Amino acid sequence: MDRGSIEPALTPGRNRVHEVIFEADTPAGRAFDIALLWSIVLSTAALLLESVESIRLDYGPAFEATEWLFTGLFSVEYALRLWCVRSPARYATSFFGVVDLISIVPGYISLVIPGAQPLMVVRALRLLRIFRVFKLGHFVSQGNTLMLALRASRAKITVFLFAVLNMVLVIGALMYLVEGGPETRFSSIPQSMYWAIVTMTTVGYGDIAPQSPLGQFLASVVMVIGYGIIAIPTGIISVEIARAGKEPVLTTQHCPHCSREGHDVDAVHCKFCGKRL
Amino acid sequence: MDRGSIEPALTPGRNRVHEVIFEADTPAGRAFDIALLWSIVLSTAALLLESVESIRLDYGPAFEATEWLFTGLFSVEYALRLWCVRSPARYATSFFGVVDLISIVPGYISLVIPGAQPLMVVRALRLLRIFRVFKLGHFVSQGNTLMLALRASRAKITVFLFAVLNMVLVIGALMYLVEGGPETRFSSIPQSMYWAIVTMTTVGYGDIAPQSPLGQFLASVVMVIGYGIIAIPTGIISVEIARAGKEPVLTTQHCPHCSREGHDVDAVHCKFCGKRL
Amino acid sequence: MDRGSIEPALTPGRNRVHEVIFEADTPAGRAFDIALLWSIVLSTAALLLESVESIRLDYGPAFEATEWLFTGLFSVEYALRLWCVRSPARYATSFFGVVDLISIVPGYISLVIPGAQPLMVVRALRLLRIFRVFKLGHFVSQGNTLMLALRASRAKITVFLFAVLNMVLVIGALMYLVEGGPETRFSSIPQSMYWAIVTMTTVGYGDIAPQSPLGQFLASVVMVIGYGIIAIPTGIISVEIARAGKEPVLTTQHCPHCSREGHDVDAVHCKFCGKRL
Amino acid sequence: MDRGSIEPALTPGRNRVHEVIFEADTPAGRAFDIALLWSIVLSTAALLLESVESIRLDYGPAFEATEWLFTGLFSVEYALRLWCVRSPARYATSFFGVVDLISIVPGYISLVIPGAQPLMVVRALRLLRIFRVFKLGHFVSQGNTLMLALRASRAKITVFLFAVLNMVLVIGALMYLVEGGPETRFSSIPQSMYWAIVTMTTVGYGDIAPQSPLGQFLASVVMVIGYGIIAIPTGIISVEIARAGKEPVLTTQHCPHCSREGHDVDAVHCKFCGKRL
Repeated sequence: MDRGSIEPALTPGRNRVHEVIFEADTPAGRAFDIALLWSIVLSTAALLLESVESIRLDYGPAFEATEWLFTGLFSVEYALRLWCVRSPARYATSFFGVVDLISIVPGYISLVIPGAQPLMVVRALRLLRIFRVFKLGHFVSQGNTLMLALRASRAKITVFLFAVLNMVLVIGALMYLVEGGPETRFSSIPQSMYWAIVTMTTVGYGDIAPQSPLGQFLASVVMVIGYGIIAIPTGIISVEIARAGKEPVLTTQHCPHCSREGHDVDAVHCKFCGKRL
Repeated sequence: MDRGSIEPALTPGRNRVHEVIFEADTPAGRAFDIALLWSIVLSTAALLLESVESIRLDYGPAFEATEWLFTGLFSVEYALRLWCVRSPARYATSFFGVVDLISIVPGYISLVIPGAQPLMVVRALRLLRIFRVFKLGHFVSQGNTLMLALRASRAKITVFLFAVLNMVLVIGALMYLVEGGPETRFSSIPQSMYWAIVTMTTVGYGDIAPQSPLGQFLASVVMVIGYGIIAIPTGIISVEIARAGKEPVLTTQHCPHCSREGHDVDAVHCKFCGKRL
Repeated sequence: MDRGSIEPALTPGRNRVHEVIFEADTPAGRAFDIALLWSIVLSTAALLLESVESIRLDYGPAFEATEWLFTGLFSVEYALRLWCVRSPARYATSFFGVVDLISIVPGYISLVIPGAQPLMVVRALRLLRIFRVFKLGHFVSQGNTLMLALRASRAKITVFLFAVLNMVLVIGALMYLVEGGPETRFSSIPQSMYWAIVTMTTVGYGDIAPQSPLGQFLASVVMVIGYGIIAIPTGIISVEIARAGKEPVLTTQHCPHCSREGHDVDAVHCKFCGKRL
Repeated sequence: MDRGSIEPALTPGRNRVHEVIFEADTPAGRAFDIALLWSIVLSTAALLLESVESIRLDYGPAFEATEWLFTGLFSVEYALRLWCVRSPARYATSFFGVVDLISIVPGYISLVIPGAQPLMVVRALRLLRIFRVFKLGHFVSQGNTLMLALRASRAKITVFLFAVLNMVLVIGALMYLVEGGPETRFSSIPQSMYWAIVTMTTVGYGDIAPQSPLGQFLASVVMVIGYGIIAIPTGIISVEIARAGKEPVLTTQHCPHCSREGHDVDAVHCKFCGKRL
């Protein structure tokens, strides 16, 4: 993750800071990481609470101060991270480097354009470090299995979404013809497409709903289709998760004596002729 | 796809046009295809925007001109395609031939019956050519796997939909008895069936919802049933996708003695005649 | 299906009627079956249309006449079926016998208790005969695979529904404590349980929705749980469909010579020692 | 389950009570268990009905009496259970011990804090004893398979929920920026997060819905994402149920020479030491 730490020929001071900030093996490093996780949780909670009007009216200045405190702390931390790694560019472009940066930038932007602060919730992504700090390797490997399955299904999912988008377009146009009109909620094709997505994904807000019998019939057909095709991504991903979770059960190794294959990865002797593999 | 190009004994002019329009291997053909894809995107976007009333009021004539420009261009293109293929009938009845035609017809129909233009969004289907132009063979093969899985599950899905339709009918009639009445939203059996579909597919608009305790109890049962049977198409399709993605488990080896196949990969003797494989 | 036809020692007249009514192999039998299917479709359509108030006001008497015509026809048909089978009791208690009866009974009940007619939509189930008439054996066998999978998952599904019911009860009580009150929509525990079912099945009408922050937080937890457990019936049924679709791949037969097992069902010789099984 | 009964060196009286209360093999024990199940059903039904205002106004005192009757009975039963087991501590901390306790506690709490009674619906969990009383071992084993599958998917589901929570946070903040405002329903980030959960789980109440085109576009993207990721828990659980339902593919045979196991069913020689199995 933090590849900047690969070449450690730094001055002792930078080395020490690097150890504290990037690693969780020493007591100081662990304490720093736990303090960091708590800061993230607290600053995110502050952002959420500040957005509630009644709370903002009562404690606005307190929350503003908290926000700037945490933004300041995270800025110092980001600067320290840049300073103590051997290759700042590599850290700055890594996943965590980018997340670390965009957790502080909206704070400064809000000085120019008010209202950008809510975007700082992105800093919650920094909590992903939790798996490293608490050595939850099992969770990381399970997460990787999921990512692998998702990546393997990318092509199928892309084709599927392309097909769904086309259906949404055609269904939206049809509903606009059937139900549309200036006084209805189906006021334009994009609006009808929004309805088609709300319906096919089975979300069904009900803010836009067909009123005429023909529109309701068409909507019923759309729902049954949506119901059917919700099965497709599920099927794709199930199959890929099943595949990603399986180890290669057999080697492709031949027995050098009887030339037969089908041996387990842990086999020492050929299971057919008994000679060593 | 474009089978008209199989027998190329055309005049050089038609040959040249054919190459540009139907193939994407020459620079001219590739340029044509990319220009075509952009035209499709732009003309579809124009159709969507024109349907928004506030935009139509401001820029109506401009959009109308754009629409006719693209319809004209696509008409010329369609005529050229018909002219340069050896077998116009075969092209005209192919999937892309039909899509190409119905992307221009509603424009001309709208001269007689106003309001048919939205149907021209069908031309978005022409974007499917994108996979051919950019040689995205992987996506095409993944799409085929999905089509195969869907085709293999057709019989099961048909039986399932038949059963669902019967349930919708019976549930609709029951709810009409329980909740129906002139002043309610369950005003007729078809309306109650619409509610049953909205509920069983878990869309749940909420425009029609039971009010009486008995109706709510019945609705709860319907929801739990719907919740259970949503699993069925998913199960069907998962299994078929798994099957479509799997290689055959058996070898394709023939017995040298009795010529029969279907042997396991680890078989020593033919399981039919007993001779060694 | 029609087991009454197993022992055919009937008088020629009853035999002839039996052939026409129960079988679809002779031209007369086939014509009868197709006429029957159309009658079912038409009478069901009449029931649906009659329930629409505007249509009933205009054509009420015509629909009433149609209804009685079909009910009469189906009554005669039911009597004939009873008369021409060897074992009327066996037919009357078979699946189709029961469906045939309950498609006519509500008509007569409605003479005493008005309003029972809508229940006659049950006669749509008689359309299941379509698979027999058109010899759609493939669909029947696919339907049986589905039934098999559902039956095999019965125990798991029962346990699952029992667990869901308990969750609904506890969640309903909690929401009643948090959001309940005489002026709210969460007016009683049963009402809150109805909300819990609407939410956990992801139907989400929106007629009852939490208003307080605590209620919304609790609802979010319920939704995420519902989202998670919707996966369980799907998983159960997927696995059973996969199992039901598979033939038994291996016999449990041992080779009488080398005593080894793992032979295919179509194996004649042992695949390990080559002797006959 | 009731491990307190392992060491039965009790006085005859306690032994007898233990037999009646904890076991279902003697007629008295069976009668007690069936009476208990009915009491649970009746007392739960009373709790539900009492919460309906119109019923409470009419029969309030009767329901209150019923409630105290059952709470008293269950208290006596709990005391007897504690008295007759050898190790009261072990019973009191077992699953059923805890459930038995929390089915009576809210009754006594309600003397101090009115309104706690609805929590007594937890006593419905005591109905789980039904599987033991009626020896429904099949259901218990199927339930265990489900629990096993759920436990095996815990790590994957945790990672998944963590990712969903992060998405909900970011989407909530974005929607608050796009649609938020004092006069809208997106009045704060927590409120927007509630909307994000309602939408991503496809519940879709519709009490909060985007109004601006940009908000609707963003919501469409969220729905399609939600639609896609609903597939993930389903996939995870399907795979685990399939795994939990499968027998081990390997034999449990030990090699007689090197004592190691893990051999295929068709192995002739030990794959580790090469000696014949």
